[in-house]
Amino acid sequence: MKKKYRVGILGATGMVGQRFIQLLANHPQFEVSALAASDRSQGKPYYEACAWRLSGHAPETIRSMRVQAPTPPIDCDLVFSSLPGDIARATEQSFAEAGYPVISNSSAFRMDDDVPLLIPEINHDHLGLLDQQRKRYSDRGFIVTNPNCSTIMLALALAPLHLNFGVEATIATTLQALSGAGYPGVASLDILDNVLPYIGGEEEKIETETKRILGRFNDGRVDHDPMAVSAQCHRVNVMDGHMAAVRVKLRRRVRIEEVREALKAFRSVPQDLRLHSAPETVIQVLDQPDRPQPKLDRDAGRGMTLTVGRLLPDSVLDYRFVVLSHNTIRGAAGAAILNAELLIAKGYL
Amino acid sequence: MKKKYRVGILGATGMVGQRFIQLLANHPQFEVSALAASDRSQGKPYYEACAWRLSGHAPETIRSMRVQAPTPPIDCDLVFSSLPGDIARATEQSFAEAGYPVISNSSAFRMDDDVPLLIPEINHDHLGLLDQQRKRYSDRGFIVTNPNCSTIMLALALAPLHLNFGVEATIATTLQALSGAGYPGVASLDILDNVLPYIGGEEEKIETETKRILGRFNDGRVDHDPMAVSAQCHRVNVMDGHMAAVRVKLRRRVRIEEVREALKAFRSVPQDLRLHSAPETVIQVLDQPDRPQPKLDRDAGRGMTLTVGRLLPDSVLDYRFVVLSHNTIRGAAGAAILNAELLIAKGYL
Amino acid sequence: MKKKYRVGILGATGMVGQRFIQLLANHPQFEVSALAASDRSQGKPYYEACAWRLSGHAPETIRSMRVQAPTPPIDCDLVFSSLPGDIARATEQSFAEAGYPVISNSSAFRMDDDVPLLIPEINHDHLGLLDQQRKRYSDRGFIVTNPNCSTIMLALALAPLHLNFGVEATIATTLQALSGAGYPGVASLDILDNVLPYIGGEEEKIETETKRILGRFNDGRVDHDPMAVSAQCHRVNVMDGHMAAVRVKLRRRVRIEEVREALKAFRSVPQDLRLHSAPETVIQVLDQPDRPQPKLDRDAGRGMTLTVGRLLPDSVLDYRFVVLSHNTIRGAAGAAILNAELLIAKGYL
Amino acid sequence: MKKKYRVGILGATGMVGQRFIQLLANHPQFEVSALAASDRSQGKPYYEACAWRLSGHAPETIRSMRVQAPTPPIDCDLVFSSLPGDIARATEQSFAEAGYPVISNSSAFRMDDDVPLLIPEINHDHLGLLDQQRKRYSDRGFIVTNPNCSTIMLALALAPLHLNFGVEATIATTLQALSGAGYPGVASLDILDNVLPYIGGEEEKIETETKRILGRFNDGRVDHDPMAVSAQCHRVNVMDGHMAAVRVKLRRRVRIEEVREALKAFRSVPQDLRLHSAPETVIQVLDQPDRPQPKLDRDAGRGMTLTVGRLLPDSVLDYRFVVLSHNTIRGAAGAAILNAELLIAKGYL
Repeated sequence: MKKKYRVGILGATGMVGQRFIQLLANHPQFEVSALAASDRSQGKPYYEACAWRLSGHAPETIRSMRVQAPTPPIDCDLVFSSLPGDIARATEQSFAEAGYPVISNSSAFRMDDDVPLLIPEINHDHLGLLDQQRKRYSDRGFIVTNPNCSTIMLALALAPLHLNFGVEATIATTLQALSGAGYPGVASLDILDNVLPYIGGEEEKIETETKRILGRFNDGRVDHDPMAVSAQCHRVNVMDGHMAAVRVKLRRRVRIEEVREALKAFRSVPQDLRLHSAPETVIQVLDQPDRPQPKLDRDAGRGMTLTVGRLLPDSVLDYRFVVLSHNTIRGAAGAAILNAELLIAKGYL
Repeated sequence: MKKKYRVGILGATGMVGQRFIQLLANHPQFEVSALAASDRSQGKPYYEACAWRLSGHAPETIRSMRVQAPTPPIDCDLVFSSLPGDIARATEQSFAEAGYPVISNSSAFRMDDDVPLLIPEINHDHLGLLDQQRKRYSDRGFIVTNPNCSTIMLALALAPLHLNFGVEATIATTLQALSGAGYPGVASLDILDNVLPYIGGEEEKIETETKRILGRFNDGRVDHDPMAVSAQCHRVNVMDGHMAAVRVKLRRRVRIEEVREALKAFRSVPQDLRLHSAPETVIQVLDQPDRPQPKLDRDAGRGMTLTVGRLLPDSVLDYRFVVLSHNTIRGAAGAAILNAELLIAKGYL
Repeated sequence: MKKKYRVGILGATGMVGQRFIQLLANHPQFEVSALAASDRSQGKPYYEACAWRLSGHAPETIRSMRVQAPTPPIDCDLVFSSLPGDIARATEQSFAEAGYPVISNSSAFRMDDDVPLLIPEINHDHLGLLDQQRKRYSDRGFIVTNPNCSTIMLALALAPLHLNFGVEATIATTLQALSGAGYPGVASLDILDNVLPYIGGEEEKIETETKRILGRFNDGRVDHDPMAVSAQCHRVNVMDGHMAAVRVKLRRRVRIEEVREALKAFRSVPQDLRLHSAPETVIQVLDQPDRPQPKLDRDAGRGMTLTVGRLLPDSVLDYRFVVLSHNTIRGAAGAAILNAELLIAKGYL
Repeated sequence: MKKKYRVGILGATGMVGQRFIQLLANHPQFEVSALAASDRSQGKPYYEACAWRLSGHAPETIRSMRVQAPTPPIDCDLVFSSLPGDIARATEQSFAEAGYPVISNSSAFRMDDDVPLLIPEINHDHLGLLDQQRKRYSDRGFIVTNPNCSTIMLALALAPLHLNFGVEATIATTLQALSGAGYPGVASLDILDNVLPYIGGEEEKIETETKRILGRFNDGRVDHDPMAVSAQCHRVNVMDGHMAAVRVKLRRRVRIEEVREALKAFRSVPQDLRLHSAPETVIQVLDQPDRPQPKLDRDAGRGMTLTVGRLLPDSVLDYRFVVLSHNTIRGAAGAAILNAELLIAKGYL
């Protein structure tokens, strides 16, 4: 049996931190060796420090681990980070400088020129940016990020269309789940019998990150794609599972069957490399008129498969569809873990 | 004191029927004199026939009225109809033929060439179509319809922009309330912790009705407007209050302040005529980043005022905003009552 | 026109504070002259300081008022307090010492020997305790409290039974609304698709306060009633409206019709004095098998009437029923205002 | 490999029918060979006939099976039935008469003198009643039922207390999930922001079934236990997981630690026989003050373990606690499957 990488989780008590712990519980390549959080929970056993919000209880081995301050050194080979925005930048930098690979779900470094904003199915070649980071961080430290939860979903749905036909413009209207706001996050008085038409910073993130992810790696840098991206974001009363109503304008005229086929057939490096967290089906396309639905489809492919439905011609742009993915798995913890698996496969860890 | 018009309500036990009863309870021009419904409730007192879903109980005077079959004659001067689609066409036609003005919220006749699809703030001149109906119905019978609940909201938000700048294309993504599906309507198992990305016929209705409402009345007929309209519709876990995320492409370049001002300044015939149900403010524009919200804004102007927020430049079309209105008041019962008030003011009743 | 009492609201930005403002908006005897809160909102206009959670917006006259620190002197004749538990005691005492009548919804002083725990329909004679307070506070300052929201409901439902037949024991199981936890209060992730079987301190409050309210005022003190009270409390996903499933054991054998009649016939001093906030019907008894329901019945009597339903013989105690009341009106702000109205009528203000 | 029993499911398209299919998908002793339903779905493939409400889709092997009428003969060795009440009695009887073992979740036969109302952990000896049924049904046909979903939960929680200390009286107040009402079941307009204090027939079922389950099998019949049982039932906005607030009066004085220990230590025949669906832990007792919660605890022991929390002395009866179980697994489909497993182990199949 191969030795596992020992991982530390920064932000271990939050919603995404809990997903990290859940997804890593029986992972063949990683084992959790350290937990850190920025809040009052430091020094307590995880069991006391964390309001566990997933079904059941935290895994037995984790429950008694002490939560530490997110300051290097901590006892691990690499860190997964889901720290809140305000402290993520300084903290993640200090870990990279101390020689830790940092696989981050935070937004702090996503738009930095030398940091890969990585979705393994789309832009594994952006890992070339790590050469640039060698100038910044001595030793073996570096930072790799995954995009915002909604952006991952949108970019994954656009990727096969962009690859095959070219996407000129896209309009996405999201209906996002509560877990995306963390815990305690959205007050129940704000969302019961209600919709919130505002998620701070989200529309900007989707509009800029998408162009970076789909951009070309060229001569040591990423050129952002010129496509136009419009996002309107809403919070709805759903636990897990972000949804987006998407319209696309393509660079050339294609039939709807071609669009459908491109979505269904999409597979890429993680599937070829058989990465542990890579879903067999990247995008499942459903034909029932009332799918996707968060409750029924968010767990497809253990939360790593996107579901697309309601693919139709659009009267303003070319085509429209509805896409759904699990926001704390494919859109956060699972995304970071898949990134780490790719880093192993590519020899970066 | 002026004598009131005596009205019959077809579909009196449904969600919209209950709103008719609630809104007419102290109306200065109308009094409810007959209740009809198509279901098993016939013959029972309203109290027993109806699962009253609004706060409290049905008004005392209504509770003991017997529910009749929706077949003329019934004892009234005009009828409001919110019959279900499958029986609306034959029933409303039989009332019109029997000489009753039919003010309908049903979809049956909305797209008929000689039937006004009326929003008094937008197209009061479409009432000219009633001249055509004289050929169809003897006596004083006629049919006037109001649009689909989501269409009313979209058309009202577009009207001032179309009037002032010309709308070339619009993309609307709706988040619609449960009461729009009637009672029992959406099963709780389908909507708790969920979103439904499908409402039968809704996208088509929005795309076609909007063009008819905003079309020109010309030489005895309505020419549909050539604008492009795209709609994607979703059901969310909200009691009342439809919301739409809207993008618009205008026929000419305008500044965002002009768009904002056009929306705020919009007023029309119902306001000039001081119709009883006409809101003083047709559209309130809110600047807080997290408005409109169904729970907080649906009751603005006693449910007849639209709320617009999040007005911003759009990266694909020109501008975007979020609009909200009360779907069973402005979008159904209140719409029909406002239509009837206009008909009185214009001498049609 | 009579001059109105000028009132300050301590805790003006919270959920109960908002209800105070809403209920006092057109009150014939009170006008709001000062707003205070303990949090970061001090110095800001109310509009900015407060996340208004009730429909629409705060009244125009209130919106621009500055929120002050809750420290005397503030510009008013009396204060309503809904301060959080941790600071209520010191703050309310400082106002009473400074000569202000304090009408409090906080729990701080409820069980103090010389403080009336007042429900005007039940124990107006407990106001006799104010004579004791004269020893404590110079001048015209004093403190009057209303009970916990669930206790008010339970005590009001028990009062006519206790008066007529004697209550020996009662078992109450509550299903409480979210607004009772304040804002932000319960996290949406905790209550969507869930029930919380714990509300800190609530069961103890119900069990002790009920016996004090129903106790006898005797020789300058209140003797707690000897009845046995058992409470189990749950938080459910409801905005407003606490519900309790109640069993009672009576001191003598009575027929169910007598129980029903006692509940329906209950009226008391506030009704006799025609206090402004006193509901005409203290308790409405509904016979439909599926009532009371929070959504349909919480607003009965403008939120001041209790609704009782499902009155049945019980197989372990004598009778059982379900009771509902509006927790932030009858159970909080409305309760305090009714107390103040009684104090005026009785000459204490 | 042993040959599996081939089972037919009566009521296969309902909520409990779907759970049967899900739980039997990889069962070592049973394989689904026939599907039947009473509604319009007959003749259609299951995929079309059923609005699958569980996560994902129905198992591949089931999707294409045709749904038949629930009339013998159908191709199987035994039937599981979750037919609706109105047709269950005649249909189940016809299957028993035709020689099929009928393992029923329906209420039709639960209180028949010669029908076991079975919870394997409690009253496996009631299977002795099957000797009586031999008089009724020729051949190998018979009927075994499981109790109502809430009753199973209450009876299982009471069983160890009754066994060890004797239960004299119990008062249960339930907060029940939506899936218990079937599909479409509760209308979303009825339960959003609401609680329903009425579930038809439920209080009676709990009060009578509990006494039969805990009764003694004696000389070919079951003597109902004399304990007093009081139930008040509510529907809350939760998908799965019934909860009950329970008080108990014991026949003798015991310390709370004894109560706690009796609950925790409870194990019985299914655990000894290692039946496939038997949970290792029948009752888990949690000490956190805010547990059990439906969302966090309903899946304990794959939905077969009860969770008890908030165990406290009670001021009216002796002790109180809150209990939770999965209503469509432990309370319905899982209960019936466990019954069938016991029947195999005891040689009845």
